[in-house]
Amino acid sequence: MSNSTTLKVRLPVFVVLLEIVILALYAVFVTYDDNANAKLQNNQTNPMENSLYRDYPYFSDVQVMIFVGFGCLLAFFRFYGFSGMVFNFLTATFAIQWAILVQGFFQFYYDGKIHLSVINLLNAEFACAVVLISFGAVLGKTSPVQLLVMVLLEIPVFAVTEWAVLKYIRINDAGGTILIHLFACYFGLGVTFVLYRPSLNDGHAKEITSYHSDILSVIGTLFLWVFWPSFNSALTFKGDDQHRAILHTFIGLSASTMTAFALSAMFNKRGKLTMADIQNVTLAGGVTVGASVDMMISPAAAYALGIMGCTACFFGYKYLTPFLAHHMRIQDQCGIHNLHGLTGLISSTAGICAILLATEETYGPSMYQIFSHRAPPEGDPKLLELQRMIPGLKPGLGRTAQEQALYQVAAVFSTIAASAIGGLVTGFIMKLPSMASPADRDCFDDELFFDMPSDFVGAEVLKTTCNDEKGQIKSMDSNV
Amino acid sequence: MSNSTTLKVRLPVFVVLLEIVILALYAVFVTYDDNANAKLQNNQTNPMENSLYRDYPYFSDVQVMIFVGFGCLLAFFRFYGFSGMVFNFLTATFAIQWAILVQGFFQFYYDGKIHLSVINLLNAEFACAVVLISFGAVLGKTSPVQLLVMVLLEIPVFAVTEWAVLKYIRINDAGGTILIHLFACYFGLGVTFVLYRPSLNDGHAKEITSYHSDILSVIGTLFLWVFWPSFNSALTFKGDDQHRAILHTFIGLSASTMTAFALSAMFNKRGKLTMADIQNVTLAGGVTVGASVDMMISPAAAYALGIMGCTACFFGYKYLTPFLAHHMRIQDQCGIHNLHGLTGLISSTAGICAILLATEETYGPSMYQIFSHRAPPEGDPKLLELQRMIPGLKPGLGRTAQEQALYQVAAVFSTIAASAIGGLVTGFIMKLPSMASPADRDCFDDELFFDMPSDFVGAEVLKTTCNDEKGQIKSMDSNV
Amino acid sequence: MSNSTTLKVRLPVFVVLLEIVILALYAVFVTYDDNANAKLQNNQTNPMENSLYRDYPYFSDVQVMIFVGFGCLLAFFRFYGFSGMVFNFLTATFAIQWAILVQGFFQFYYDGKIHLSVINLLNAEFACAVVLISFGAVLGKTSPVQLLVMVLLEIPVFAVTEWAVLKYIRINDAGGTILIHLFACYFGLGVTFVLYRPSLNDGHAKEITSYHSDILSVIGTLFLWVFWPSFNSALTFKGDDQHRAILHTFIGLSASTMTAFALSAMFNKRGKLTMADIQNVTLAGGVTVGASVDMMISPAAAYALGIMGCTACFFGYKYLTPFLAHHMRIQDQCGIHNLHGLTGLISSTAGICAILLATEETYGPSMYQIFSHRAPPEGDPKLLELQRMIPGLKPGLGRTAQEQALYQVAAVFSTIAASAIGGLVTGFIMKLPSMASPADRDCFDDELFFDMPSDFVGAEVLKTTCNDEKGQIKSMDSNV
Repeated sequence: MSNSTTLKVRLPVFVVLLEIVILALYAVFVTYDDNANAKLQNNQTNPMENSLYRDYPYFSDVQVMIFVGFGCLLAFFRFYGFSGMVFNFLTATFAIQWAILVQGFFQFYYDGKIHLSVINLLNAEFACAVVLISFGAVLGKTSPVQLLVMVLLEIPVFAVTEWAVLKYIRINDAGGTILIHLFACYFGLGVTFVLYRPSLNDGHAKEITSYHSDILSVIGTLFLWVFWPSFNSALTFKGDDQHRAILHTFIGLSASTMTAFALSAMFNKRGKLTMADIQNVTLAGGVTVGASVDMMISPAAAYALGIMGCTACFFGYKYLTPFLAHHMRIQDQCGIHNLHGLTGLISSTAGICAILLATEETYGPSMYQIFSHRAPPEGDPKLLELQRMIPGLKPGLGRTAQEQALYQVAAVFSTIAASAIGGLVTGFIMKLPSMASPADRDCFDDELFFDMPSDFVGAEVLKTTCNDEKGQIKSMDSNV
Repeated sequence: MSNSTTLKVRLPVFVVLLEIVILALYAVFVTYDDNANAKLQNNQTNPMENSLYRDYPYFSDVQVMIFVGFGCLLAFFRFYGFSGMVFNFLTATFAIQWAILVQGFFQFYYDGKIHLSVINLLNAEFACAVVLISFGAVLGKTSPVQLLVMVLLEIPVFAVTEWAVLKYIRINDAGGTILIHLFACYFGLGVTFVLYRPSLNDGHAKEITSYHSDILSVIGTLFLWVFWPSFNSALTFKGDDQHRAILHTFIGLSASTMTAFALSAMFNKRGKLTMADIQNVTLAGGVTVGASVDMMISPAAAYALGIMGCTACFFGYKYLTPFLAHHMRIQDQCGIHNLHGLTGLISSTAGICAILLATEETYGPSMYQIFSHRAPPEGDPKLLELQRMIPGLKPGLGRTAQEQALYQVAAVFSTIAASAIGGLVTGFIMKLPSMASPADRDCFDDELFFDMPSDFVGAEVLKTTCNDEKGQIKSMDSNV
Repeated sequence: MSNSTTLKVRLPVFVVLLEIVILALYAVFVTYDDNANAKLQNNQTNPMENSLYRDYPYFSDVQVMIFVGFGCLLAFFRFYGFSGMVFNFLTATFAIQWAILVQGFFQFYYDGKIHLSVINLLNAEFACAVVLISFGAVLGKTSPVQLLVMVLLEIPVFAVTEWAVLKYIRINDAGGTILIHLFACYFGLGVTFVLYRPSLNDGHAKEITSYHSDILSVIGTLFLWVFWPSFNSALTFKGDDQHRAILHTFIGLSASTMTAFALSAMFNKRGKLTMADIQNVTLAGGVTVGASVDMMISPAAAYALGIMGCTACFFGYKYLTPFLAHHMRIQDQCGIHNLHGLTGLISSTAGICAILLATEETYGPSMYQIFSHRAPPEGDPKLLELQRMIPGLKPGLGRTAQEQALYQVAAVFSTIAASAIGGLVTGFIMKLPSMASPADRDCFDDELFFDMPSDFVGAEVLKTTCNDEKGQIKSMDSNV
């Protein structure tokens, strides 16, 4: 470790500055939402109808995904388990508290205040998921200071993009395929493009897993798998929409899991299973059903999407990731382009097909609720008629299916553009000096930023023993 | 590894075939349940009364049990952690998607379609639990191809048995003691009887745990323990019935946990605790309260059942499992006969006692709801009277308590018979060539089916060090 | 291991005695609450309004915290993972079943019976949390028999204190800061004061962590972190009160997590992060918001409390814990005085400020619901007026804010006094012979009470190699 990576001054100073700013902004701008405000309760209020009881179960499930699921999943390197899990903890924590403010300004701001309830936290968790996905691209090669800078910049770019797309382009994206997965992916690729490290292109001695880190990572995968239906359905309409979202997500994940096992064995030289496939490719179905997750696509279509997403993701890991690294200076450490980019593109396409195929025959009048921008505009007599059948239906824009499909395409391209540019700029800022960026040889090594327990065998020992055929590792392994 | 166990061709081919069949069947037969169908929503629909909100929390809890709980629990072998956890993942995934179809035909089929909602998934999870319990009997000795074959056959046998018992014998079995635990146990024993490996009867060098695998397995136990009340109560009537099911399960588990610690220390030579007891025997109470879990048995009876089940389970592990292996060719790897068979028999007996003791004095008119087959038949004037007190009470069969008890006995025996025969047949099919069945020496070894990280020390090293008289490992391993 | 610590006789005898007593008491005194009693269901009952559905989700979340969260967190020692996790399991199980009875007598006893429902279990879990926190003070230095004795005595002392404070002093303490955290802390300090071991004051060779135990412990932290909002809000009023409790807990934890990272790096010699800080200090915010968690303190105040609690906790670990050990004979193994004592005192102070600042202007009429002792007494005309606005408002004591603040102060001091005295007495009883108390040299060692797997390298090996300058282990330890 050189002095350039000690956190002694820069991390505390940066964190304390952030905390002062956030505390000041909370004090000035954040107040309680009506559902959390004691003053607004009266004899008309039924406590059990508080929005809390609709939102908290999903918030709680997503919390497990973010902190435990991602945390374990990212701890898959043999010498980088502390960092994977703990930097995920730090990054997620800051991302949520920052997103409460930034997203709050765009989505929950009125009467001069951000109004806080669990639904804000839930939205902030999705912003946080965006950052954590992007983090996957640079795992092992960034300091906690760099990660905090990434959060600081990615959250506003995301919040603005989300707000602009939802307000001006107006799309259907219940599972967050476009706004979460595609945004996160191309932002992360932008960052890693700038942080390119040529010397790591042929692998790094510490870029390996261990028996225990592989198991830990699978546990992370399982937590993500189990709660993914909550993730994909948390922001849909309540009722049958959310019900379908849960069914489709489960079926999609289930199909992609089966497929991942088949492909893993088929393309392994010796016909064995590869843990990295089990850890990542199994999850592809959850992303792939995202854009059409609440639509009447049929269970079979969800199954087919799971298979397709998984296949694309698998071959992405096999061929595209090495290609990007060697020919395009994009070192995508966890392969986010496979798990979130390729699947996201398939999902967006499927969403567009589902929009084009949607008819009142299939959906009944609630078509205008799901595809809210196709609802007749204010003043249209058809709107009144529909509102008799679906009370509370809001006036829409009267778009046709074809128009909506074009807007979806526009959203995909503008999201990719915004995120890639945002990622590039963020990458340049993360590359500035004083960010404690690890030297190439110190990547993937917990020892750089942590006080290590005495049984930790770091990089030095590994190198020594690689040269020394009968050396220490041999004898250490015999302790196992 | 010999060529006979490479998965390169057989796993992908088998999985792809299964996927094609399932996709076709989903496309033709599976549609949305009314609660997930957009077309059926109208101005009478209250989205918050969607069945989703009644079923999803229990589905979600059972998901954690199946994927994380079982996954970690089955990872207790030192050299078989990948396989335990990952084969559980594969098996569970396929079991649920297959059970959605097969159970769907028996339980959710009308108008030519299987109607899909979260309640189907919940039922499919129970079918999945059946398979995973049976899997415990053959853990370490089967290939993933064999496991998929087991799922393929066990699910239909289970679905038919379940349907026949519920439709023709008509029993009370809220916690699934008879249909889940007894079925799973005797099916698994049938399979392992056929797959008998004489050379493994005196133990296998790799049939050991490690410090970390033992801890991982306890984590699995804890997740099962924590969510077991949801498992036992997921399919009861809502309201006080589900409430009692949760209370009884908690109390039963709690009593069996205390007892397991006492017995573990008492019967250990040096008065120490044995991790295998903590991992398994503590859970016996959850099974033992199953058959009477929603009845008015009193909290004290649940406590007593926990103690009894735990005691039977403990001595089963100590005496019966070795006896079965040495004298009856039944190698029950995880001791499922102790944790699910013996406890299941006690539970069934307790259920019968509870049925015989049930009176209107204790239950009030809702006795005829819990013991629905004792309700007066259609046309009986008593039915109308009862329906005034319990609206929605369905006509029953007018059985007496004694009659119902006899039907319960019949159900126990027919379930055991059906499952044992099904298991034997399944075992023979799993024994066919080309199933990639591991050789005896390759059992309990991840290396057979996985690409291993470099720190994995497999069987070869273990043997080497055993020959080296002065090596540390030797002296430690000699404790085994 | 000497004979004095074998569990062969004493653990089973003690457990069986306890079980007989508990079973007898359950049989005589415990019956179902109305919500779990089949007899009380009639045509007025709506099953979905059963109290189960309000309480079970929170019960379930707290179960994960108690069994998985605490279990993993306490497994942080390298040679004491089995004990940390498994003794937590035993202690928690017994604590809950014992608290159901003891707390039941004080809180749910009428008509000669304890009436059991999930709300009792939820309350019993809080009593259990008290014991587990106290356990932290003596981790590594106590036998399971001693721990059961601690449960046996701490639960009644806690239940009496809780009952007396709530009935006679009448306080606001929604998050359980005073009754849970302060009680648990000073009880634990009392016990450890009596169990003082001078020879351990300069550290113990086995008092170290390992790479895997540190990761495991962080997983425990993450589960506690994720479900803490449920813990702090489980017993508040439903509706906006619970909503605020969840928001404040999340914000408090979030602020303390950021702060913990900053302080950890700042006060480390080489500017690195220390895992013990991540495992413990991050959680300080959850305790610190406790006493005012349901009040209208504003989100910014919750943030500030998180920072303050974390700072106090961090410096407590750094300076106060060594001071207590060296100068006051208080060996606080897990530093519960930092995480629960100091934060508890800050939280109590904050609660008092919030009480003094509470006005009808901020809270509206529901002020008299949150601060129920400030509600006008029976017969006061203002009560009738308020009851028109808040139906179901109960008459209070007509206390002023200042009076209520004084009662809070009284509650803090009496709770600390009762718990410290209870802890001292309990410590003396735990010190009696025949409790299987470990010798100093056997502390922090799983081998004392467990059959160990062959890869466990215990104390002997560690000592041997420490003397052997060229030994393998030595060279690894020199990384420290």
